Amino acid sequence: MPTSTDFHVFDTTLRDGAQREGVSYSVADKLAVARLLDEIGVGFIEGGWPGALPKDTEFFARARTELKLRHAQLVAFGSTRKAGVRVEDDPQVRALLDAETPVVCLVAKSDVRHVREALRTTLEENLAMVRDTVAFLVGHGRRVFVDCEHFFDGYAADPDHGVEVLRTAFAAGAEVGVLCDTNGGMLPMGVGRVVADVRARVEGKLGIHCQDDTGCAVANSLAAVEAGVTHVQGTANGYGERAGNADTFSLIGNLVTKMDLPVVPAECLPELQRVSHAIAELANIAPDDHQPFVGASAFAHKAGLHASAIKVSPELYNHLDPAVVGNDMRILVTEMAGRASVELKGRELGVDLDGHADVIGRVVDRVKVLEADGWSFEAADASFELLLRAELPDAPPPLFELESYRTSVEHWGNGDVVSEATVKVHVDGERIISTGEGNGPVNALDNALRQALVSRYPQLADVSLADYKVRILGWKGGSGATTRVLIDSTDGVGEWTTVGVHDNIVEASWHALVDALTYAVRNR
Amino acid sequence: MPTSTDFHVFDTTLRDGAQREGVSYSVADKLAVARLLDEIGVGFIEGGWPGALPKDTEFFARARTELKLRHAQLVAFGSTRKAGVRVEDDPQVRALLDAETPVVCLVAKSDVRHVREALRTTLEENLAMVRDTVAFLVGHGRRVFVDCEHFFDGYAADPDHGVEVLRTAFAAGAEVGVLCDTNGGMLPMGVGRVVADVRARVEGKLGIHCQDDTGCAVANSLAAVEAGVTHVQGTANGYGERAGNADTFSLIGNLVTKMDLPVVPAECLPELQRVSHAIAELANIAPDDHQPFVGASAFAHKAGLHASAIKVSPELYNHLDPAVVGNDMRILVTEMAGRASVELKGRELGVDLDGHADVIGRVVDRVKVLEADGWSFEAADASFELLLRAELPDAPPPLFELESYRTSVEHWGNGDVVSEATVKVHVDGERIISTGEGNGPVNALDNALRQALVSRYPQLADVSLADYKVRILGWKGGSGATTRVLIDSTDGVGEWTTVGVHDNIVEASWHALVDALTYAVRNR
Repeated sequence: MPTSTDFHVFDTTLRDGAQREGVSYSVADKLAVARLLDEIGVGFIEGGWPGALPKDTEFFARARTELKLRHAQLVAFGSTRKAGVRVEDDPQVRALLDAETPVVCLVAKSDVRHVREALRTTLEENLAMVRDTVAFLVGHGRRVFVDCEHFFDGYAADPDHGVEVLRTAFAAGAEVGVLCDTNGGMLPMGVGRVVADVRARVEGKLGIHCQDDTGCAVANSLAAVEAGVTHVQGTANGYGERAGNADTFSLIGNLVTKMDLPVVPAECLPELQRVSHAIAELANIAPDDHQPFVGASAFAHKAGLHASAIKVSPELYNHLDPAVVGNDMRILVTEMAGRASVELKGRELGVDLDGHADVIGRVVDRVKVLEADGWSFEAADASFELLLRAELPDAPPPLFELESYRTSVEHWGNGDVVSEATVKVHVDGERIISTGEGNGPVNALDNALRQALVSRYPQLADVSLADYKVRILGWKGGSGATTRVLIDSTDGVGEWTTVGVHDNIVEASWHALVDALTYAVRNR
Repeated sequence: MPTSTDFHVFDTTLRDGAQREGVSYSVADKLAVARLLDEIGVGFIEGGWPGALPKDTEFFARARTELKLRHAQLVAFGSTRKAGVRVEDDPQVRALLDAETPVVCLVAKSDVRHVREALRTTLEENLAMVRDTVAFLVGHGRRVFVDCEHFFDGYAADPDHGVEVLRTAFAAGAEVGVLCDTNGGMLPMGVGRVVADVRARVEGKLGIHCQDDTGCAVANSLAAVEAGVTHVQGTANGYGERAGNADTFSLIGNLVTKMDLPVVPAECLPELQRVSHAIAELANIAPDDHQPFVGASAFAHKAGLHASAIKVSPELYNHLDPAVVGNDMRILVTEMAGRASVELKGRELGVDLDGHADVIGRVVDRVKVLEADGWSFEAADASFELLLRAELPDAPPPLFELESYRTSVEHWGNGDVVSEATVKVHVDGERIISTGEGNGPVNALDNALRQALVSRYPQLADVSLADYKVRILGWKGGSGATTRVLIDSTDGVGEWTTVGVHDNIVEASWHALVDALTYAVRNR
């Protein structure tokens, strides 16, 4: 059985994954992503293409002093030398040496049509480019892996050239030959057959790199492992061009928990969920709640019909104990759920509802009415908890009574843009008028309200907004749409999410804001 | 080779897919989704659970008169009779008859642990429940399919009971026995082995239902097909509980284009992309741009390095001609792209840049600067086109000059929430002051600006906002965040997207709004 050293988990989030539409990392982001990937125990982190992209050149320069990796080796990506050029004269190859990484991953053409139509050279020269570049880098002490671009499409068109590229690379000293489904059109059965075929014809360690154009990138990679490859490439959260790449987290989750291959150190597995979300944050992409293993909903149950059985035997309803990958099970409060779900959710929140059948009934009714208006508590546990506690016999009164508010944005003649808000509230019988400024109408309201409440509730000084999400529901041509706002708040220790819904985005935000501050006072 | 009638594509978007967190269809939505699914040629549409969910009972009642399907048969979902009850006395089974669908899909327990711990009955009674319910419904003229819940987990624990459930169902008259990976923990190799095993032990038509908890739902379904099942269940866009279900569009795309199984009528295939997006709209979920086959980015290329080769031979860079599934290829404008991408994009937009090397250079520079500030043109073709045309020698002047604007939201003491905006602009030398109301600060600004411009540009009367998206970039604790706004506009004929970025959400919206109206005047 391969261990985490002889089985390669090779992550290319920072190189191939950066091709995803909308992704643009700063050098600091790239360093942070590399540190996070190291925490899940991958063996190799491909950091970018020095020489081709200035940001990547800078990344490798800073990595030498700033990046201390515990598990992974850093990899520089580049191309074989240009056709008709001596390898030592190719500046792109020199840039690979200058990156000073222990490992270099070279991309080589392995589809005859790409050699002829994109490279515009001969098959012989293509092999010479592979041979020269691998030998040159190995001669300079580098471990060299070779990505055989378009390998599977090329194999269908002419299997011999791809095999020749692999043999040439191994003969020149390459350590791994990676079969790439660059256009992503393969299915697992086909991948398994080609890998078995190639293994019978070539001596050397093989790898796999899959794109997700058929929705099978993870399965294709696993089929290749079953057929004998021992090097698997993926990207965090499957980020990548078009439909993306094989998701590193799903690959690791499946290899370790379903195929019994300990490809990362055991203590790294519970980091998957945290690292997935942290990288999404750095990539500035909303995490996919439905992502296998690590998504916020990956172990969430909404079926009211099952809720009573789940209470008894959760393991019958999960393919895996969520804690293994650092995730947890959640019960969702929705119209499909009944009283059992509310009870279970209450227990999850630490609210004992035994003997409060009337409370449960009122909460179920209230959630139904609000959901019909567009509210959703599935992502807003804090708002749900406030709603639940408000129905309990000893429910406290609201923090304050609102008299009115007013918020504005002005774009002045000199180009300045300014926001200001005034709230009039009653706190413990006292009428307070407070004005705040901000970088937007909601931020100004937040500042005005907080200022009105902070002398009575000093703990609000530590609370800040961590994220603000807006969703337009049922837009009907410019008016009549409903806006749902979710606010994530933090006090530096924990985070909580609140929701507000209204036709007016500012009023929707106000609801979420009031819940956020109320939760901070009552429950933190 | 199976045809579209003897191979079943069975869609359960409206039943199992409705378990997805955040999804809540109205009855009208369900009818619209069913019509859309019919347009892609699926054989069966599972509409819901009559008797258990009031909305589903109403759906089937209205479907009888309002739903005319061309390709699909409608399916009602329900459970086998309760333990210890006569089938004709079980109201849930009667509700299945009352739904008056040609097909009923019954869920049966097939995992001994679920029989004992969730149903709390004996294996014998479980088989009797299957036998009685299937026979009763067949006796009333229904085609009956049986979903064997938790089949794969059950098969690992005790293979005999699942096989007995299948044999019992077939003996009682069931047409299909569906093997369900309810907890979604399987991989393709395992699915293939179990299906082959079951086929050797049971006579009858087998189906497959996969959840995506390992990221392999599509691949698992295809592995089952390769092992001999001829009935495949999926949901539109893979919507479903937890990580979701197998995506109906990926299933059809792969079965038809990769496995040469004509499982839907040929003329339906180019409808996939449109239907996928229309159902996302009805489900109120943002379409996944990276979804295989149908995502907006599924055939998008960002690599500036490849752009010149893509110009020559696009088929070398796509696994499929995008038009086959109603999609198209897009070239993305990003910092990774160079001059070739801008040229290609110009061609796509119908702007001839031959002989304008200076324009291309200025556009590349400007995009780089704006992207560094958080702008993104990948989804905002209209803003990019305006930026491109503004650099051409004969570029027209702006529609107007802004002097200032002011917009406000007030929550009054009586509970009313009102928005108002005033803009001061100069149009063709004339100073216009215009005030508008709206259901939010941006809608009020839109109304005020439009009113100021419409006498000079009457075509703006036909333009309306179709969608409004807000993204917070790099939120840093309540201030200093940048907001990116995307606005989709329509004139009833086409749609276009514009972008705006600023610290203040209102100013960001203003930029996107001005581009939207400018594009309407200049390019529509």
